[in-house]
Amino acid sequence: MPLSPAYKEIIDKAIQAIHARTFYAQYPEHPKAYGEEAPVKAQAAFQAQLGHPFQELLQQNPASWLGEETSPYTGQNLGITYPAFEVETIVVRAGRAFGVWKNVSVDDRAEILVDALERVKNRFFEIAHSTQHTTGQSFIMSFQASGPHASDRALEALAMGYEELNRFPASIVWEKPMGKASVVLQKQFKAVPKGISLCIGCSTFPIWNSVPGMFASLITGNSVIVKPHPKAVYPIAIVVAEIQNALQAKGIDPNVCQLAVDSSTQLITKQLSENPLVKLIDYTGGSAFGDYVESLPGKVTFTEKAGVNSVIIDSVADLKAVIQNLSFAVSLYSGQMCTAPQNFFIPASGVKQGDTVIPYEEVKKALVDAIAGIANHPQMGPGTLGAVQNPATIKRVNSVRDLDAAILLDSKPVANAEFPEAKTCSPIVIEVEAKDTGIYENELFGPIVLIIKTKDTNQSVELAKHMAEKHGAITCAAYSTDEATAQYIISEMESVFAPVSLNLTGMIWVNQHAGFSDFHVTGGNPAGNASFTNPEYVNKRFVWVGHRRVS
Amino acid sequence: MPLSPAYKEIIDKAIQAIHARTFYAQYPEHPKAYGEEAPVKAQAAFQAQLGHPFQELLQQNPASWLGEETSPYTGQNLGITYPAFEVETIVVRAGRAFGVWKNVSVDDRAEILVDALERVKNRFFEIAHSTQHTTGQSFIMSFQASGPHASDRALEALAMGYEELNRFPASIVWEKPMGKASVVLQKQFKAVPKGISLCIGCSTFPIWNSVPGMFASLITGNSVIVKPHPKAVYPIAIVVAEIQNALQAKGIDPNVCQLAVDSSTQLITKQLSENPLVKLIDYTGGSAFGDYVESLPGKVTFTEKAGVNSVIIDSVADLKAVIQNLSFAVSLYSGQMCTAPQNFFIPASGVKQGDTVIPYEEVKKALVDAIAGIANHPQMGPGTLGAVQNPATIKRVNSVRDLDAAILLDSKPVANAEFPEAKTCSPIVIEVEAKDTGIYENELFGPIVLIIKTKDTNQSVELAKHMAEKHGAITCAAYSTDEATAQYIISEMESVFAPVSLNLTGMIWVNQHAGFSDFHVTGGNPAGNASFTNPEYVNKRFVWVGHRRVS
Repeated sequence: MPLSPAYKEIIDKAIQAIHARTFYAQYPEHPKAYGEEAPVKAQAAFQAQLGHPFQELLQQNPASWLGEETSPYTGQNLGITYPAFEVETIVVRAGRAFGVWKNVSVDDRAEILVDALERVKNRFFEIAHSTQHTTGQSFIMSFQASGPHASDRALEALAMGYEELNRFPASIVWEKPMGKASVVLQKQFKAVPKGISLCIGCSTFPIWNSVPGMFASLITGNSVIVKPHPKAVYPIAIVVAEIQNALQAKGIDPNVCQLAVDSSTQLITKQLSENPLVKLIDYTGGSAFGDYVESLPGKVTFTEKAGVNSVIIDSVADLKAVIQNLSFAVSLYSGQMCTAPQNFFIPASGVKQGDTVIPYEEVKKALVDAIAGIANHPQMGPGTLGAVQNPATIKRVNSVRDLDAAILLDSKPVANAEFPEAKTCSPIVIEVEAKDTGIYENELFGPIVLIIKTKDTNQSVELAKHMAEKHGAITCAAYSTDEATAQYIISEMESVFAPVSLNLTGMIWVNQHAGFSDFHVTGGNPAGNASFTNPEYVNKRFVWVGHRRVS
Repeated sequence: MPLSPAYKEIIDKAIQAIHARTFYAQYPEHPKAYGEEAPVKAQAAFQAQLGHPFQELLQQNPASWLGEETSPYTGQNLGITYPAFEVETIVVRAGRAFGVWKNVSVDDRAEILVDALERVKNRFFEIAHSTQHTTGQSFIMSFQASGPHASDRALEALAMGYEELNRFPASIVWEKPMGKASVVLQKQFKAVPKGISLCIGCSTFPIWNSVPGMFASLITGNSVIVKPHPKAVYPIAIVVAEIQNALQAKGIDPNVCQLAVDSSTQLITKQLSENPLVKLIDYTGGSAFGDYVESLPGKVTFTEKAGVNSVIIDSVADLKAVIQNLSFAVSLYSGQMCTAPQNFFIPASGVKQGDTVIPYEEVKKALVDAIAGIANHPQMGPGTLGAVQNPATIKRVNSVRDLDAAILLDSKPVANAEFPEAKTCSPIVIEVEAKDTGIYENELFGPIVLIIKTKDTNQSVELAKHMAEKHGAITCAAYSTDEATAQYIISEMESVFAPVSLNLTGMIWVNQHAGFSDFHVTGGNPAGNASFTNPEYVNKRFVWVGHRRVS
């Protein structure tokens, strides 16, 4: 069946947006765009789900029911259980579903997947609640990141796949002139999917980081096993359920996309990853496990691991605007974004602003004061910082105090009037010397900011580049009013495949990567081997096979 | 500078051809298309080169001069030496040249590379002589494979790269509406090359198998080190020299593309491959070294290794035409093509032809007789079989006699009136049972044909599929007049990423893969991890990096 006109338009517009890379959103980020009723209904649905088994999945005969999610805001167990299965059962079902799905036409796959996204759209507010109470993100961030932004990213991957799969004709007649005669062949070109695809989710962005790989694998004809982090299942369970609904509505085996839950004490990730039938693995999380995934023989992997993101401050038009922007960037969701800046390289000689030089100490103080200001602000603080997903993050913040470094701003709980039990901690800011690479060469995930005093901007760039090359970087924020210096920073950082965000002030932050425009992770440095969404991200999921026959 | 109109037309037409996949050739395969003078001049140039150092390369200050090529036709050493360098020197020069080349615009790179191909075109006849007397191919095959066919493949890779590099805009303005205001960013999208690219050549197709990777890496901004097989340097040396001429003509460091010769007794391939600055490796050759290349950490590799190519005979319209076609396919260049069929699966119950069944023994005899007929034919024999490149191939043929298998046709020298000293051996044909997988599961490179008696076509397909999955396959020739059976063969073989050539008879053979139309190797089974030329083949050689700035 050809795509329905409405869905074709969605995909065509998405493909255009990918090419143009100008601003585009299929799913508006403002909650008001979804009507007045949606949030009310969602609140009720969320409350009804708490304390009960999640019954929406179409996977039959679970071996057990598992659940261990706890709200970082209330400290309470959500009390939701999910159907769990033997790994063998999951893989067998995925293999059987693959046999069906690979033969479904690209247009039919696209129809089902856009339908799934339209169904997910109706769940954005419940997804927001579930994301908030698993990840610790603020409600509005949960809504945007797990809702419209994630769905835009899913659509982006879907559209990129759709374009690639249609890149070559399904069949042609090849006629080679040979003097008086000619040789004629009928040729068929098929994009043959790789097999079973495994998507390993993380606890901080359970939907945003998972759906691109899921939709990229699904549109290219692979069946998908989604293995969420056991502490953040609910949000992605809704998405998987809606994909299954969309599949079933077209009479396709819902096991084309399965949820594979496990428990912290008995993880099944390695067992799934090492299964020989699993050919593709999407992974978001720590570097150690990511390196393991990348090292598995016979797998095509798409990883997003840890990175050490740098800020290079050379010269500014308006320090206040710069500091405002950066202090928000490090505070947002308490530094639990893979895009959050960590290492601030500031020259000891100070920062030029117009004709004056602002001394290093003054820049440092401005940054520390601004970060403290956000954390202490009764309204802005909790809304910006949210809650901390993992107790290990709070431990990490505490352990920073033991480092051989000056503490410029200590971390403390962030008062949250709505959720007095929220697990919070404000950013800790420490100061180190350029020589202290042992301290700042690691990703210190969470609200941890390091100010590194450098000789000059050249050294700042050299160190930031070295960090990106050796330890990975997803973002680099740089500030310079000198064009030659700016170009130097860009050229050095791009040589280690780190993108530069230059002179950001106002309502845009280095943490934000927009769908259809910004490549998220380049895939070129140790922060990850894949990119949302370049052509490689979908091409590697299938193989072009050309058959020929004498007509 | 924008591309010159003539070269732009060449690239545009190539891109169109890649999309259409109908017959296309930029470089005609018929020698007559190149005028009457070309062959005469080339003959003189070839004779003048024999016994002398190859002086055309623009690489300065060689450490020594090496050469050990021997003609499989005359048994004589060619007496040509090539400038050799320390690995360190080569890598340092490649790194310096990369620094220049990565900043050359895509259009300027394309201008230089098309220019290089136009220069190579003027050398097609000398290339033919040099290929004949290093690989053992016949003169006409040498001309076509190393000349027009190889240049078409190089242009295909170049054009694919050109299209991909221009896929996203170099810069855009991104404006996100935010209620009454909006956020405006300038964004820049850059295709940043990976670094130094190493191309490891083989002794049988020194140009055809090397130029796609070279041109793919060059158009995407990487510098290239070409490490030819020490027994087949001359052909690719001409190509590298012409690339260097094209670079120098535009004032670019010719070390953007270097030749790195070594000797059989002191190979430098591993040293080059393991150098941390080498980021990309193209490889053609045996599986053991190919597996080593693929296993190197931190490298992106493009391999073509060994495969076990099958022929499945189920039913035929005209057995004679089928046997004629297949006997030529196994004889061409004495089976020294990676695309040559090896394992013939024939049902014990015979082969249907219309309403009759031709008994197994009769099919077998027809094939054996036809193969013997070509080898014994005084004109057709030497022209089709050519000479044997590597003494190991003759040893392999001899060792087949020791296998526990019936010899249906023994190998013997092929009389060659023009070159009485030619190293030749006609195909050996042996017969085994389906259970003898230990014999036929290996690539027996060279003129070795195995007839495998199967229970029925289902078993033939099962075994051919298993071979492709476990040991790789580049081609699969199948014959069936029953459409359901044909579709079954296609679907089974494509599930292990092996393309099927169905019912080929007449002037087209399974060995032939046409540029701009046939994907050569799928990249999906152990025969190799790359494909000439799918989008992945160029995409993996660079990284999309997006910078952003407040305007």
